[in-house]
Amino acid sequence: MKNSRRHIRICGTGVAVPENVLTSEAIDRRFGLPIGTVFERYGVRARRYAKHESAASLAAKACDDALARAGLEWRDIDCLVAASATMDQALPYNAAMIVNELGNRARHIAAFDIGASCLSFLVALDTISYLVDCGRYRNVMIVSADIATFSLDWSTLGESAIFGDGAAAAIVRKSRPDEASCILASRVETHAESASHCHIKAGGSRYHPARSDVDFMPLTLFHMDGPRLFRIVSRELPRLMADLLEGAMVKLDQVRLVVPHQASRLALDHLAKRLRIDAARIVDILADFGNQVGASLPSALHHAIADNRLQRGATFMLLGSGAGVTLGGMVMVY
Amino acid sequence: MKNSRRHIRICGTGVAVPENVLTSEAIDRRFGLPIGTVFERYGVRARRYAKHESAASLAAKACDDALARAGLEWRDIDCLVAASATMDQALPYNAAMIVNELGNRARHIAAFDIGASCLSFLVALDTISYLVDCGRYRNVMIVSADIATFSLDWSTLGESAIFGDGAAAAIVRKSRPDEASCILASRVETHAESASHCHIKAGGSRYHPARSDVDFMPLTLFHMDGPRLFRIVSRELPRLMADLLEGAMVKLDQVRLVVPHQASRLALDHLAKRLRIDAARIVDILADFGNQVGASLPSALHHAIADNRLQRGATFMLLGSGAGVTLGGMVMVY
Repeated sequence: MKNSRRHIRICGTGVAVPENVLTSEAIDRRFGLPIGTVFERYGVRARRYAKHESAASLAAKACDDALARAGLEWRDIDCLVAASATMDQALPYNAAMIVNELGNRARHIAAFDIGASCLSFLVALDTISYLVDCGRYRNVMIVSADIATFSLDWSTLGESAIFGDGAAAAIVRKSRPDEASCILASRVETHAESASHCHIKAGGSRYHPARSDVDFMPLTLFHMDGPRLFRIVSRELPRLMADLLEGAMVKLDQVRLVVPHQASRLALDHLAKRLRIDAARIVDILADFGNQVGASLPSALHHAIADNRLQRGATFMLLGSGAGVTLGGMVMVY
Repeated sequence: MKNSRRHIRICGTGVAVPENVLTSEAIDRRFGLPIGTVFERYGVRARRYAKHESAASLAAKACDDALARAGLEWRDIDCLVAASATMDQALPYNAAMIVNELGNRARHIAAFDIGASCLSFLVALDTISYLVDCGRYRNVMIVSADIATFSLDWSTLGESAIFGDGAAAAIVRKSRPDEASCILASRVETHAESASHCHIKAGGSRYHPARSDVDFMPLTLFHMDGPRLFRIVSRELPRLMADLLEGAMVKLDQVRLVVPHQASRLALDHLAKRLRIDAARIVDILADFGNQVGASLPSALHHAIADNRLQRGATFMLLGSGAGVTLGGMVMVY
């Protein structure tokens, strides 16, 4: 697989979260546990959860935030890519729902979805970078928004404790000749023999309620076989990262910052240990937001930029795994 | 919008349909109508409908058909893009479900979804062409599979009469220097102020059954405001096509064949009339398959190739509209 360098630049990022906060202390109380138990066990202090918000309304807010930070306006954007893990509604696609939410601000631009569960943002950035570098689109808005709240089994501690809702966006354009910003290399692969280890069965044609008389509600819930997923990712991710670094022709110690998908406390800690990455170089927003599903990776990227941890010219890495099972990584110069 | 020519070649296509056939005569009988009424009114003689089949199982069959016709094997394919209008299940994404269905045949390739409702195939081909031309992927399998059956309101004649289930795939690779095959130009735009004119509300986080106590079943059904959609498409498509032809630097009479999304009898007839395209140059498989949603456009393409109506070196056009509202077109040399 050839990995031509793509001369693109992230020129703005933004985020949005629902209004309502759910603290781990509230979950402690709900499960009758000593205060502090959920945070200690799962590493998430608080997460946001949607009440009136839709994925499209959060996405639109994140886009507006990214535009303001980039100093751009909607008329500068000629393509919007929705890169969420889940659908807002079955039809039309997420990008249409977001452009609809934007009303007169973004009329008649190109809009479509790129999806690969929790790595949708990484895959969308990877894919669209070729079109931006070739000049097909000038400024592309990539936005991820997921509302996990309603698909969670709130009687199960593990799931209640980990996931949060949110949206994050990034605008990319072609780098100017005097800018070092680029994608050095990227890797994406799907280990689909493990597709059933992380799934929501309903929502499509396979388990349509008109198709079976099985109790429908349980099919709408998220299920994850954590230990099995963890084994696959532990086994495969080091190889993928080594291959990625080789493709980028950089050594791990030249990577200033690693922006991982915020899967769980265990996954982030394991990343540091198994891949031998100094924890200080790993962006970790899990405690404050939980695992925001597809929005998790771009949210972490946004906070790294907003907190000035990622600076122009620095080499950094996006890395993660998600349902599919999908593994992916990218080395960029910011 | 720059439209650099992309040197890619469609080197194989394939299709798959469910076993069960539903004739329009059977629908005549169901609604107590004189035999022949449904065909006369809607122009569909028969369509296939899924019973035991899943979208992923149909997709896998269509992929195998395309491989056989291209004289390739699964080990030649390094990327699979699922380009369906609807989800197989909510999580993981469609491409993972398809690769899972393929089992040991396609292990650990890159796999992801590109979605834009009924134009997903066109948008996927348009997008991935840049990656193929740049050498990122060698042979990409693009596959669309939709099962509309369970989302249809079978008490409504119009919907029962039009839609069919199916899958279609195409393999693309970079053209060799002695091959003329390429994309000359492409256009995609979303008129999202009309997103609600064609939708399925349930299936995602917006109308999750855990979120409301409204009767859920009606939310899982497809709804379309045909006349309003028709007005938008009639108004906008001629301009898009003129712009597309200008970008491709070809005149309409140099376009040997037009492969449209098989939306409806009315839409196909209107295409001929409004865009002044000779009906003999329009690929029309509606009578035998109905509107196969996302699989409709690549199925029509497949039949044009299999029936030898599209020959190497000929300039042809993909064209259509879908929920979103999405408009798109592409001029290629086959």
